[in-house]
Amino acid sequence: MGSIQEERTITGWAARDSSGVLSPYKYTLRNTGPEDVYIKVLCCGVCHTDVHQVKNDLGMSNYPMVPGHEVVGEVVEVGSEVRKFKVGDVVGAGCLVGSCRNCKPCKSDSEQYCNKKIWSYNSVYTDGKPTHGGFAEAMVVDQKFVAKIPEGMVPEQAAPLLCAGVTVYSPLKHFGLTQSMLKGAILGLGGVGHIGVKIAKAMGHHVTVISSSDKKKEEALDHLGADDYLVSSDAAKMQEAFDSFDYIIDTVPVFHPLEPYLSLLKLDGKLILMGVINKPLQFVTPMVMLGRKSITGSFIGSMKETEEMLEFCKEKGLTSMIEIVKMDYVNKAIERLEKNDVRYRFVVDVAGSKLDE
Amino acid sequence: MGSIQEERTITGWAARDSSGVLSPYKYTLRNTGPEDVYIKVLCCGVCHTDVHQVKNDLGMSNYPMVPGHEVVGEVVEVGSEVRKFKVGDVVGAGCLVGSCRNCKPCKSDSEQYCNKKIWSYNSVYTDGKPTHGGFAEAMVVDQKFVAKIPEGMVPEQAAPLLCAGVTVYSPLKHFGLTQSMLKGAILGLGGVGHIGVKIAKAMGHHVTVISSSDKKKEEALDHLGADDYLVSSDAAKMQEAFDSFDYIIDTVPVFHPLEPYLSLLKLDGKLILMGVINKPLQFVTPMVMLGRKSITGSFIGSMKETEEMLEFCKEKGLTSMIEIVKMDYVNKAIERLEKNDVRYRFVVDVAGSKLDE
Repeated sequence: MGSIQEERTITGWAARDSSGVLSPYKYTLRNTGPEDVYIKVLCCGVCHTDVHQVKNDLGMSNYPMVPGHEVVGEVVEVGSEVRKFKVGDVVGAGCLVGSCRNCKPCKSDSEQYCNKKIWSYNSVYTDGKPTHGGFAEAMVVDQKFVAKIPEGMVPEQAAPLLCAGVTVYSPLKHFGLTQSMLKGAILGLGGVGHIGVKIAKAMGHHVTVISSSDKKKEEALDHLGADDYLVSSDAAKMQEAFDSFDYIIDTVPVFHPLEPYLSLLKLDGKLILMGVINKPLQFVTPMVMLGRKSITGSFIGSMKETEEMLEFCKEKGLTSMIEIVKMDYVNKAIERLEKNDVRYRFVVDVAGSKLDE
Repeated sequence: MGSIQEERTITGWAARDSSGVLSPYKYTLRNTGPEDVYIKVLCCGVCHTDVHQVKNDLGMSNYPMVPGHEVVGEVVEVGSEVRKFKVGDVVGAGCLVGSCRNCKPCKSDSEQYCNKKIWSYNSVYTDGKPTHGGFAEAMVVDQKFVAKIPEGMVPEQAAPLLCAGVTVYSPLKHFGLTQSMLKGAILGLGGVGHIGVKIAKAMGHHVTVISSSDKKKEEALDHLGADDYLVSSDAAKMQEAFDSFDYIIDTVPVFHPLEPYLSLLKLDGKLILMGVINKPLQFVTPMVMLGRKSITGSFIGSMKETEEMLEFCKEKGLTSMIEIVKMDYVNKAIERLEKNDVRYRFVVDVAGSKLDE
């Protein structure tokens, strides 16, 4: 890409409208400020949220939009105040690139809950310019929002961890669900669900995958290492599983009844919602009261948790199941992801796609 | 009542059908077993649950039914294995008179969540006979389910604490919400709500009462000592209160929207439901996810918490606001309670009603 000092125009792949179709788009990155890290993107995961954003499913999309928030790259330049990273480091960026730094969440390492957080893309940065994500040659990111990728971790493996991984890790950590021997369930086996199984297993939990059909049974038990598989329409098996789980991570992104799952929880059990669902979910109060159960949810994780989770995955040798594609396949990948036709995460080999040519 | 050893037939006031009208009813108590305490009832609070039970609102009522589960009495006889209580002690009994003793909740002092719990009334005891509550001359209760009333506490004051008091105390304790300086809200100012204000204030919290109208404002601020009063239909004030509470104790016993209240909670805030509502409540998932909020609930409290709460109330000089009535007023009291026409709890002076005459 030549000298980054002089030439700041890069190529990303942007959606131009709610068709969500991505195509090459040239734009300018800000100069690397004192706290900034200039990252050459190596690869970037494709998350369901990207699909919602490019298609304006949430009604808040601005175009052109370069999506991508599971970004792994190589440090090419660092600002004068950056001590944590040096040129050549492999690093990650996730959903956020900024927050206020002053609110209670920011001051307690929970910056993902800052009301002034700045998203990696489809957001406006402090300089007034739109943010753009990781489906691009490069990103400039404030060091606070850059994570070190542990040495030896394959970049493509690391990418899905930066959103899906920390999304599961954070609530397990926060709600005190990291000790071994807990009994957990993962509801829904998509990108987040599959990493959920892996992380929960790595913590030493007994892990059941709950699904609406038995289609993914072999996958869950044989390939992902789940301990059990429960089909939610099997009334007898659901009855058997009554009052047996410490937690259920609910990754289903569409309306669904909660009561069958609440009844599976033990005393003090937690139903942890991960899917953004704008149609109201329902429950009757005795289902939570008579077991002091909690319906809760969680949103990605902090940068501190991200680094902790990456180290945890490295230490446990945890790998995610991915399908690596080039950028010219990204529209097809989005189409397939919408149909859940991927095991379990697409990762775009950005560097290998030679966007600058 | 003559010698309790020989004459076990007593008078209580029972509902005979779903009209819920109580009238005198004679029945036999079991002999005082080795672990039992024979209690002469002094007084008994009237709770909303009693209304639901006598009128078969939950479809599970058996008649004749002697209700009453906020029972304060004097020990008249103890079984051979009873060491904790002696004749003459003032003691309390609450919602439960039995549990399995072997399950995880029972073994962790959370017997209120035992799946085999035995209710004080409208339940079947281990001897196969129906249980009857505190609107009666006497009760025989296993010592495990008898609480010591602290010396100097007025029996009529203690009665509402045995259900309403521990119902509020237990979740604040369990969810780590006992430290001073927390900001809490009580939604709904009935029997449980008024004790909620008092207990939260005694813990040193900043307490806001949230209500649908300003009718109870003076009561809440001037008589109960709340710090603030918020009318839920006042959009501007609700907006001002956004993101400001550590917890909301929701005592509303009918369907209501949750989202206005979820939005008032801070990061990690808890909405603690206390009302049995069989019409499903609703929420959209981003409302909990984007602040890691919890929708939870709680059910009375353990005997351990009951005794702890009584000591706490004694120490803090906490008194409940009650209206003392005789038994021949109980049907009128139930009628008024249904219309929320009581500040804030009826307590029946059972001993003074001379049921045996």
